[in-house]
Amino acid sequence: MKRSSAEGAPVTLKTIAAELGVSVTTVARALKDGDRISPETIRQVRETAERLGYVRNLEGAKLRTGKSLVLMALLDFTEEEEIGDSGAVRLLNGFHKTLAGTDFALRAVPALLGEQPFDRLRDVVRGRQADGVIMDLTRPQDERVKYLLEVGFPFVTYGRTELFSEHPWFDIDNEYAAWQGTDALLRDGCRRIALIDGDMRYTYVRQRLRGYLRALREHGIEPDPALQHHALLAADVARAAAGPMLDRGADGFVCLNEVTFLGARAGVRDRIGDDVGRIGFALRSGTRIGKYVATRLHASHVSNVESGRVLATLLLKRIAGADVKECQQLARPTLITTENGVLLHGS
Amino acid sequence: MKRSSAEGAPVTLKTIAAELGVSVTTVARALKDGDRISPETIRQVRETAERLGYVRNLEGAKLRTGKSLVLMALLDFTEEEEIGDSGAVRLLNGFHKTLAGTDFALRAVPALLGEQPFDRLRDVVRGRQADGVIMDLTRPQDERVKYLLEVGFPFVTYGRTELFSEHPWFDIDNEYAAWQGTDALLRDGCRRIALIDGDMRYTYVRQRLRGYLRALREHGIEPDPALQHHALLAADVARAAAGPMLDRGADGFVCLNEVTFLGARAGVRDRIGDDVGRIGFALRSGTRIGKYVATRLHASHVSNVESGRVLATLLLKRIAGADVKECQQLARPTLITTENGVLLHGS
Repeated sequence: MKRSSAEGAPVTLKTIAAELGVSVTTVARALKDGDRISPETIRQVRETAERLGYVRNLEGAKLRTGKSLVLMALLDFTEEEEIGDSGAVRLLNGFHKTLAGTDFALRAVPALLGEQPFDRLRDVVRGRQADGVIMDLTRPQDERVKYLLEVGFPFVTYGRTELFSEHPWFDIDNEYAAWQGTDALLRDGCRRIALIDGDMRYTYVRQRLRGYLRALREHGIEPDPALQHHALLAADVARAAAGPMLDRGADGFVCLNEVTFLGARAGVRDRIGDDVGRIGFALRSGTRIGKYVATRLHASHVSNVESGRVLATLLLKRIAGADVKECQQLARPTLITTENGVLLHGS
Repeated sequence: MKRSSAEGAPVTLKTIAAELGVSVTTVARALKDGDRISPETIRQVRETAERLGYVRNLEGAKLRTGKSLVLMALLDFTEEEEIGDSGAVRLLNGFHKTLAGTDFALRAVPALLGEQPFDRLRDVVRGRQADGVIMDLTRPQDERVKYLLEVGFPFVTYGRTELFSEHPWFDIDNEYAAWQGTDALLRDGCRRIALIDGDMRYTYVRQRLRGYLRALREHGIEPDPALQHHALLAADVARAAAGPMLDRGADGFVCLNEVTFLGARAGVRDRIGDDVGRIGFALRSGTRIGKYVATRLHASHVSNVESGRVLATLLLKRIAGADVKECQQLARPTLITTENGVLLHGS
């Protein structure tokens, strides 16, 4: 028996055909759909392909179709070195799970601070570096979206725009999430609720602000601008912001995510030590962090892995030609309340 | 002025040459090293390339050289949905920072549970899907390393093997890290120190066990196997393990990383509530987590981003033909001690 040529020249359809004394067309058909080939030949071809270490070479398909068979994810791989990430690894896991059975490879590129994400995107389109793009940090009038719509390049945004033109997106219902967290703290008796959130240039941050304000007004509370902090998503930034808000009477904090929550809680502890227990916290989470902290915590939960799955699925649908309206999906978070790591509400 | 053809056919050297009425060779030289081209022509060519939206097409270089210009990272993108990641996003950031100025693109692939990483690797080599590989979860007799050495495929492992054959690697001094954490807890007065660590199939876990045992023996303490737990790196697994160890008198915990530490601490709190403050903790960290938790904590710190930078740099060196001994690097962690989020020692 010929040994695997993994260490030599790549095994091609021709190698398998020569080994079995059949035509290359027969081998190709046997490996593909088995059309007009006997079951015995199919078995022989597949066995030989396996034994010789044949790997389907996608280069031919790429040349024929002009496709790169690459999907690109331009993601906010946070620079945060203080604590953890904001879910990018779990999103990537979701992408990979979805693409596992396809010919597409994923290339994840961090949207680094200081870099112009638009330039990067233009290079991807001009250089035909990918067949589709997933991107986050979506803005209301997103230049990237306008550009991709204009050139007809497939994409899905994580987050919505306020553009009149329809485009593919997946989003968490951020207005609802912030409303839900604020409402839960109000029901706990908090009256001076602070908001520690992201950069207002992004759509989701504006949506969150709307939800927060709505919950306050529903409870007859006039919002105080001094209790609203919008900045970069960094634990140390949230920590620095929390103290002054506490001085202004804050008795509850609605935080964007795990990183800002841990930062805010550290900032509160800096001021009042173990009395941190009398301050309420809420956040939007992609993890079960509430089970691991002593604080009482309301988490608006959506799985990051599931979000990644949906984003990749929508992009594949769009590339396959699905209507744009079928490539839009909103996920509503569920409320999970924990206290000292014990589950009180939700699952 | 001709407008950018971003939306039409790709701009090539030929497009620029036609626009300026010069030869393709002149354009190529002007964009490359400017050899034998006047400064004025160089300026004109580069300006025109920029205006027309020229993007260097690497496909030609790939065909000429037979290279994929892809580096693949086969990484433990943990399935952990309980809390956070174990540093993969920060590693990726380090890779990307290093590759930013090169022609190489990075493809990160999660080593998913249940998948045979060896099969994946063989496909990469046979299908010429990458020019080099970075991989973690390194084992003492690592089959992947043996295979890649045999076929002469460039790689760097994150973690060391116990193979006689030299190969490129980057590693954190894990024996030292575990010794350092255990020693710090012993100096705090702990006497029944438990170890909550990873799967013993991996080299770094064995190295950590050695460091832990050495520290105990240096202080004249006989190790108790009932205080050693080796399993998957999951917060809920660590949490379940901590309680029974506490019942056996554990007064300190040496944890592998952020995820296991948060799990172990939650497990201790499950048993003794706020008395968790009398239990000591140590971990190996890639973050500043100690600044955000109320516990006294000894962290053996190495930056994940920096680790990523070194791994990518070593792989590039190896691909460029550097001697294997120049592609090996050990990072020694520094001890950072915090209490209630306040820095006591380290930086």
